[in-house]
Amino acid sequence: MPDITITIEPEGSRLAASPGETFLDLAKRSGLALNSPCGGKGTCGNCRVIVTEGAQPATEEEQKFFSAEELAMGYHLACRMKLASPMRVLIPPETRAFDQHVLVEGSSRELPLAPLIAKIHVKSPAATIEDQRADADRLCEALNGRVGPAGIPHHIQKGLPAILRKNDFSVTAVLADGRLTGVESGDTTGRLYGTAFDIGTTTVVGFLADLRTGKLLATSSRTNPQISHGDDVVSRIHHISSRPTGLKELQTLIVKCVNEMLQELASAAGISTKDIYEVTLAGNTTMNHIITGVDPTYVAQSPYVAAVRAGQNIHPAELGIRINEGGNVYALPNIAAFVGGDTVAMILSAGLHLSDAMTLALDIGTNGELVLGSREKLICCSTAAGPAFEGARIAHGMRAADGAIDRVDWDGGDLRIHTLGDKKARGICGTGLIDAVAALLDAGVVDPTGLMQSPEEIPPQGAALAKRIVARDSQTAFQLVAARDSGLEKGIVLTQRDIREVQLAKGAISAGISVLMGEMGISADNLERIVLAGAFGNYIRKERAMRVGLIPSIPLDRVHFVGNAAGAGAKLALLAAPCRPEGEELSRRVRYVELGGRPDFQMLFAEAMIFPGEVP
Amino acid sequence: MPDITITIEPEGSRLAASPGETFLDLAKRSGLALNSPCGGKGTCGNCRVIVTEGAQPATEEEQKFFSAEELAMGYHLACRMKLASPMRVLIPPETRAFDQHVLVEGSSRELPLAPLIAKIHVKSPAATIEDQRADADRLCEALNGRVGPAGIPHHIQKGLPAILRKNDFSVTAVLADGRLTGVESGDTTGRLYGTAFDIGTTTVVGFLADLRTGKLLATSSRTNPQISHGDDVVSRIHHISSRPTGLKELQTLIVKCVNEMLQELASAAGISTKDIYEVTLAGNTTMNHIITGVDPTYVAQSPYVAAVRAGQNIHPAELGIRINEGGNVYALPNIAAFVGGDTVAMILSAGLHLSDAMTLALDIGTNGELVLGSREKLICCSTAAGPAFEGARIAHGMRAADGAIDRVDWDGGDLRIHTLGDKKARGICGTGLIDAVAALLDAGVVDPTGLMQSPEEIPPQGAALAKRIVARDSQTAFQLVAARDSGLEKGIVLTQRDIREVQLAKGAISAGISVLMGEMGISADNLERIVLAGAFGNYIRKERAMRVGLIPSIPLDRVHFVGNAAGAGAKLALLAAPCRPEGEELSRRVRYVELGGRPDFQMLFAEAMIFPGEVP
Repeated sequence: MPDITITIEPEGSRLAASPGETFLDLAKRSGLALNSPCGGKGTCGNCRVIVTEGAQPATEEEQKFFSAEELAMGYHLACRMKLASPMRVLIPPETRAFDQHVLVEGSSRELPLAPLIAKIHVKSPAATIEDQRADADRLCEALNGRVGPAGIPHHIQKGLPAILRKNDFSVTAVLADGRLTGVESGDTTGRLYGTAFDIGTTTVVGFLADLRTGKLLATSSRTNPQISHGDDVVSRIHHISSRPTGLKELQTLIVKCVNEMLQELASAAGISTKDIYEVTLAGNTTMNHIITGVDPTYVAQSPYVAAVRAGQNIHPAELGIRINEGGNVYALPNIAAFVGGDTVAMILSAGLHLSDAMTLALDIGTNGELVLGSREKLICCSTAAGPAFEGARIAHGMRAADGAIDRVDWDGGDLRIHTLGDKKARGICGTGLIDAVAALLDAGVVDPTGLMQSPEEIPPQGAALAKRIVARDSQTAFQLVAARDSGLEKGIVLTQRDIREVQLAKGAISAGISVLMGEMGISADNLERIVLAGAFGNYIRKERAMRVGLIPSIPLDRVHFVGNAAGAGAKLALLAAPCRPEGEELSRRVRYVELGGRPDFQMLFAEAMIFPGEVP
Repeated sequence: MPDITITIEPEGSRLAASPGETFLDLAKRSGLALNSPCGGKGTCGNCRVIVTEGAQPATEEEQKFFSAEELAMGYHLACRMKLASPMRVLIPPETRAFDQHVLVEGSSRELPLAPLIAKIHVKSPAATIEDQRADADRLCEALNGRVGPAGIPHHIQKGLPAILRKNDFSVTAVLADGRLTGVESGDTTGRLYGTAFDIGTTTVVGFLADLRTGKLLATSSRTNPQISHGDDVVSRIHHISSRPTGLKELQTLIVKCVNEMLQELASAAGISTKDIYEVTLAGNTTMNHIITGVDPTYVAQSPYVAAVRAGQNIHPAELGIRINEGGNVYALPNIAAFVGGDTVAMILSAGLHLSDAMTLALDIGTNGELVLGSREKLICCSTAAGPAFEGARIAHGMRAADGAIDRVDWDGGDLRIHTLGDKKARGICGTGLIDAVAALLDAGVVDPTGLMQSPEEIPPQGAALAKRIVARDSQTAFQLVAARDSGLEKGIVLTQRDIREVQLAKGAISAGISVLMGEMGISADNLERIVLAGAFGNYIRKERAMRVGLIPSIPLDRVHFVGNAAGAGAKLALLAAPCRPEGEELSRRVRYVELGGRPDFQMLFAEAMIFPGEVP
């Protein structure tokens, strides 16, 4: 007998079926994963599909699993439906949800696609004198009891009589974690998008995904506009606690930024922002508080207390975020005042809590958040690394953009300097800064205490560099690029003060690592893995970072880059909502070590400012 | 050994205890009912009390049941606490809630006092560098896990840092059915009030109660201001469906009325409306829809469908109802388009669903709602009785106010007429109308077909009344009160058209009763009880109502008045929230019989318009 063509909706693909096989057989053969926990025995009723063309009557066995409305709509069980003639079969999201896996870029985990928001299209028969069920009951019964009448929010209840009749009782229910949050005209199940945001103190990154497929459709990135009120979280909090409208001002800035990015993402994907149903947010505790309109004042005052730790589900309108009004905003949970949802996102996406390997994870941004541990136990701390690696407070510091010196090598004689985009140098970015300091340490131009040598003090191996020692603004400086070769009107230098900034930043991180290792009772020898996250962490050269003492020296193949781990965690929470309770559990379980309260920290910090090597 | 004085808070009563007895023993002896499901074995942990003065350390056994904060606050278990010295003991509401019974006026049921809203005062230690718990976690833990951090609504979360610190971490949590709905400064557990409203088409009645004691504090009653848009629900719905702002207009009228009544009730009790935490609403389906802002258009259009059947819990601000913002509005569930929450309230308060007696219940207002059945099965219908018994459409009809003829007796010769307040007659109210018609039937002035006889047709027994037959507005009329005796400038009459109105009203009700008895398969002989509800039902004379055929003839001692059963049900739902699911179950279970769809109804109606007695 010839094959039968079965068309799969909504993707429109065509499959050739052998007469007599079940739809579940066909799906299995074709790599189309359906939800069938009972393995096709016809007992669980989970492999629900809708035959939109060419339906046969439901078998007696199938009838037990469906309401009269569903049978009228063409519902069948994939495992009971024997294929005999061409048909179109719509696979509802709930039937395939748990067998479609997504791999989020930057994440080490692959999880089943399971967004928080689901859509279900229902078509109900109109009321008659024999069937006078109330509108709300009619909807709930068409939804097969997934929602009870008490679960219809009042604002939806108010619109129900009109929307049901305008659409001839054909509507799409929007469910967020099983709660009814919207009722839309007709069948809108084809439009279901979501976004994930990494809300950094300096940079905001947004991702748009199709929640039906898990596919990433667009990315957008902007500078956090709050930067006009200070580089770091403490100055932002100061702005808030020192004036009554401060919180509202900063919240408005970031919400406006997110709204513009939502618009940009939607345009890039050719959709409407009204088709976006969820926004997940990962940011540090302060960014998390500000965007959700919660006062972060006490985050920055001893004893450093967050207002919110747990993850928050908030109606988008409460924040002024412009997505579908049946949608949700989920802010990932925080751990402590200075370890926020971005760190939870990093742990989640890197799977630190699932690994047996003793791992040190660093997310170096304006603050440095450090996590140490394994499946057994995780501890964390935050260090005020300062924005040196982001280019701030460095004489010629700049972000990693065209013209930034991003790599500096010392070949034993002179320096080789590389700029981004192979443009004329305009400044130095974080990776260049580490490289430059490492090179100057190797050449003996800078000694392990961080002191820049005078030309006559430089040891023989660095003699070729002695002529580059210059005076700049009444301090010693090292000329990386001469005026004639630079993209500026003047030479590009690294000053003594720049070296001190690097020492402070790396010292803070390094001391934090020491405290965590002490708390865990391990030394660097026990470290099985280092994970570097964040835009900066991703471009750093491992060996150079070890040279300046930023990270412990371990075999290079045990150091891994995970890129924007906060963004990856936000995406994971968006696409695989069942992992959210893992994050909530982490936010309670990961122990925060307060460095401020420790008498040993200042000592470790002072020691950690010294670069590795022998002090002459 | 001498007795020890134990002072009970918050009431301040003093009890004499024998040294060595437990507080639970003392409470039992003193009629102070505490919640102790395990009977004092120390295993359930429910008999929680707080020793505010004279505390002893908690025993090891007690320590298992309390958090460190609670122990610090003086929590003890009543059954474990041996009395040895004078002390003050505060009994928190949750510990005595289930042993305080309330008897609601007009209700045949006595239920445990258990309002939906509970208040819990907590005092948390301030944050330190060793205890950096987030504000939300601190609150949740002080609440002993009754609320989780995910259960803090976002608007409360936003205010948390400020309110906790302003009050030195001493706040009162407001819980509605276990959900956190408010956090108040300091200890406000002494202020917890609620109101119940019967929203009638014609009259609105409100009750204010202390939710800590169940005591009724004030009552208020007003004419429903929507009456300017029509006497009955159909004309109100017409107003709504014929103009875009109609629903908003009528909703605003009733909400304004309720707000004024709330203010009046609060003033009468010397409290603030901010201390009112719940409003329960019982009204017919249309009143219920309008006050909650849900379009009732399809209630009045065939096939007569309600938008909402289930009970609704709505935030007061969504309706513009001015009570505490942590409060709740509960609208009782409806049964069908023309049988609403007022009927559910009647069934609930009269306990029809709990009785073995075959009962007919009538709530006669602008519409007549009828319920027939027992514990086994209940059926109901609605009849468009019209507002005749409320004085409308009757030539000299008026409400039951001073000067209304409320009783008419025929002594075999002349009529004896009684007016309310013993004032000069100004009109006739519903009970007077039934009496007058019954008297005229007895005297033969009106024949069983409802025809008013000409003087010469009146049989001998009514001869004395023949001179009272007059012509009025080109129809025959009967003069009840002569112009010289009336409070008006003219005589008070009952016209032929008035008799017809009474026939229509009583015919509709009587036919409805016949249909229900037919559906139930019983006759009047099987009726074990008749329950008359509503202001009108409460003053009717049973035997006279039977004389005109309004209710079936059964022994008079089986006819009971329950007064404002809708109000009683609303109060019951307010004071004994656990009875709400009973109402929800009734709203699903009580079968509605649609009279409009029945071919036999018109026939029964025509028959029922005839008065009992032999047509000559």
